[in-house]
Amino acid sequence: MIQSQEKPDRVLVRVSDLTVQKADEVVWVRARVHTSRAKGKQCFLVLRQQQFNVQALVAVGDHASKQMVKFAANINKESIIDVEGVVRKVNQKIGSCTQQDVELHVQKIYVISLAEPRLPLQLDDAVRPEVEGEEEGRATVNQDTRLDNRVIDLRTSTSQAVFRLQSGICHLFRETLINKGFVEIQTPKIISAASEGGANVFTVSYFKNNAYLAQSPQLYKQMCICADFEKVFCIGPVFRAEDSNTHRHLTEFVGLDIEMAFNYHYHEVVEEIADTLVQIFKGLQERFQTEIQTVNKQFPCEPFKFLEPTLRLEYCEALAMLREAGIEMGDEEDLSTPNEKLLGRLVKEKYDTDFYILDKYPLAVRPFYTMPDPRNPKQSNSYDMFMRGEEILSGAQRVHDPQLLTERALHHGIDLEKIKAYIDSFRFGAPPHAGGGIGLERVTMLFLGLHNIRQTSLFPRDPKRLTP
Amino acid sequence: MIQSQEKPDRVLVRVSDLTVQKADEVVWVRARVHTSRAKGKQCFLVLRQQQFNVQALVAVGDHASKQMVKFAANINKESIIDVEGVVRKVNQKIGSCTQQDVELHVQKIYVISLAEPRLPLQLDDAVRPEVEGEEEGRATVNQDTRLDNRVIDLRTSTSQAVFRLQSGICHLFRETLINKGFVEIQTPKIISAASEGGANVFTVSYFKNNAYLAQSPQLYKQMCICADFEKVFCIGPVFRAEDSNTHRHLTEFVGLDIEMAFNYHYHEVVEEIADTLVQIFKGLQERFQTEIQTVNKQFPCEPFKFLEPTLRLEYCEALAMLREAGIEMGDEEDLSTPNEKLLGRLVKEKYDTDFYILDKYPLAVRPFYTMPDPRNPKQSNSYDMFMRGEEILSGAQRVHDPQLLTERALHHGIDLEKIKAYIDSFRFGAPPHAGGGIGLERVTMLFLGLHNIRQTSLFPRDPKRLTP
Repeated sequence: MIQSQEKPDRVLVRVSDLTVQKADEVVWVRARVHTSRAKGKQCFLVLRQQQFNVQALVAVGDHASKQMVKFAANINKESIIDVEGVVRKVNQKIGSCTQQDVELHVQKIYVISLAEPRLPLQLDDAVRPEVEGEEEGRATVNQDTRLDNRVIDLRTSTSQAVFRLQSGICHLFRETLINKGFVEIQTPKIISAASEGGANVFTVSYFKNNAYLAQSPQLYKQMCICADFEKVFCIGPVFRAEDSNTHRHLTEFVGLDIEMAFNYHYHEVVEEIADTLVQIFKGLQERFQTEIQTVNKQFPCEPFKFLEPTLRLEYCEALAMLREAGIEMGDEEDLSTPNEKLLGRLVKEKYDTDFYILDKYPLAVRPFYTMPDPRNPKQSNSYDMFMRGEEILSGAQRVHDPQLLTERALHHGIDLEKIKAYIDSFRFGAPPHAGGGIGLERVTMLFLGLHNIRQTSLFPRDPKRLTP
Repeated sequence: MIQSQEKPDRVLVRVSDLTVQKADEVVWVRARVHTSRAKGKQCFLVLRQQQFNVQALVAVGDHASKQMVKFAANINKESIIDVEGVVRKVNQKIGSCTQQDVELHVQKIYVISLAEPRLPLQLDDAVRPEVEGEEEGRATVNQDTRLDNRVIDLRTSTSQAVFRLQSGICHLFRETLINKGFVEIQTPKIISAASEGGANVFTVSYFKNNAYLAQSPQLYKQMCICADFEKVFCIGPVFRAEDSNTHRHLTEFVGLDIEMAFNYHYHEVVEEIADTLVQIFKGLQERFQTEIQTVNKQFPCEPFKFLEPTLRLEYCEALAMLREAGIEMGDEEDLSTPNEKLLGRLVKEKYDTDFYILDKYPLAVRPFYTMPDPRNPKQSNSYDMFMRGEEILSGAQRVHDPQLLTERALHHGIDLEKIKAYIDSFRFGAPPHAGGGIGLERVTMLFLGLHNIRQTSLFPRDPKRLTP
């Protein structure tokens, strides 16, 4: 066991660096035993390091005894080992490894960390495309087994790619916004009153009282706007005590939130948000092509398409498209999930984009703090954004006038006492502002064309799952 | 009220751009009324935008009537207004404004958002240095009044600077780690079992069961290491149900967390963490000098000093220094807060640094998952890091062997059933690894030499405060 006893001079070479350039060099490598196969006086190992792997050969001869070959053959899969070996060019490409042109002729082996003999799931099964599994009758791994054994499931090339790409989304989001002059803020998650009326909120025991988990950072983003930060963003957990067991709902997810003061029109903000998403899509396609292709191997999917500038449709236009497709909907009716998806297909056919903005939602289907449209009292200055026909962002110009906010709250039958602090935030001069919240896991899922949000949350939380 | 009725062509000029280069131009500016003072046929306004302000003059004449001067004089402080005016060079510098060489001769005024007439606190009082206040008997603002009216308190030049710098800390932390090849992860905050034994944990009602708020992302960081991400970081809320009412404890704070697999020695990780902090300190001193100076005006403080490479002392060396200074302490006794501070002063005197690492803590004072020192069974492979004599990071090599982890847990009297999932994470091959967690608010506070952590949390949470 490595207990930091020594600081040896030994350099460990990355598996990804084992190429013909290193041919005939003696190297040390630390990697996992992905597979091992003994064959007479030889043992073939596949050594894996993240998404890379290389073939290693232990053969009875000058550097290895019969015992060593046997020892190598008996190391449990997933154990971490250090091997010393010579890099040898191979005559025939090794199709099953990422390092196809070389193999490692092993001289020494040390076990760094031994895995237990029985693995709860096999990595090869876990990356097998579903269709192939059905067709050939070969095993795949179901969602619960994956999640119950997440530490192993996350080692697959697909999982490694998904979460590296997700890290990239966060990075691109912040990089873009910091370049646009935004300030990052940190908002509290424990709050004294349920922010949006009290439904779907988790209760926390807070010393001798009760408190709640924030369903969104919206109030705090808005307070920062009232405090002159002008353009703010935050990335943090968002909690929804909703008993929804669907492919796209989690009880805890990561919100990428934006709020921004504008000069004259909330479209200034809509454009900034849409451009931020476009910069994310572009950045992913430029910097994460390997990851996208890795995921596509298991989950084939059309590349994500988007326009510049982003397509913006008004709600009434969407209604017309849906009606033309035979859907009956009232002017002030919200989109159902199937209608959202249908609309996504219609928009894709007509405009060839997987990303668009739906603007000017009916006032009746939006929260009380949504600014009404001054030109049409039944509409509002609010918008959703969609990827592959599913909502990833909801936003609006917020009412910044305490008088109008009070009227709107009363109209919605909201107890003014409960939102007093919210309304009071706007009493000492508040700039006009708008914003929105993006669900990180949904963006990852829909960009990659995956079908379950549990694939894009490291440790997902839903009404039935709190572990690991 | 701006309800996004129009998209006018008008350009709003930033207050910070009002310089002699713009002399004699007609400009539109949106800003807050910081002060107004009527004097016969004239009214002087100070217009403020974030940390910048400019003098504006409304005088009876060609462009302004007597009524307009009266109107201007009666606009409540903190209201947001749009003014059109001519930029005029002034003969004598205006000492009370950041834009000292020009003033604005106002031709038109519109109120964009009116503030209520009585402000709960005065911005000028809120930025007055405490000493001056006492000496001259002029008003300052106490902490609770500030926090109760945080939206106004955050508008002060000091608050604007503190939180812009804090945004910079997060940015520098991530920038450095992404350059070092780390992956950002998002860890769940709602967990099924109390991670560190059950004390000081908040309970959440989770549908029909109970759950808890994570006291640290440590288990999840470690699981990501066992899942081959190798180097991970996260920024997120950390919850401690500790009834501590001190200058440096919050019940919810922001953790900057790092975990990393290493090759041979945990000092590889210690060096990466220390270098990350050094890059943050350097970046702040390079990019945030204006903010540092702004905060120093209200809270004077020596510049933050650090060495490269970072000073690393062993615990026994620190004990010797304290004993030489007359402190009586046992070999396996933890540092008290006063002793920490004293040690900080002794280290500063001897080594001229405000930042150092204290390594090799007694095993007895560290959690069960801390790796014992193989050379000395009473010591451990663990470390804290200090800024100006206060702890900002605690970390260690973690036990990655399930057998030893079980032994250590039993030694600490921990119920194995409760940490089964934790121990099981290491059963399928776990690389040696170490890490640590940094408190964001403490880093901000101690870098700036502030004295209360509530000054560096946007909306602080402590046992007595859950609002706003």
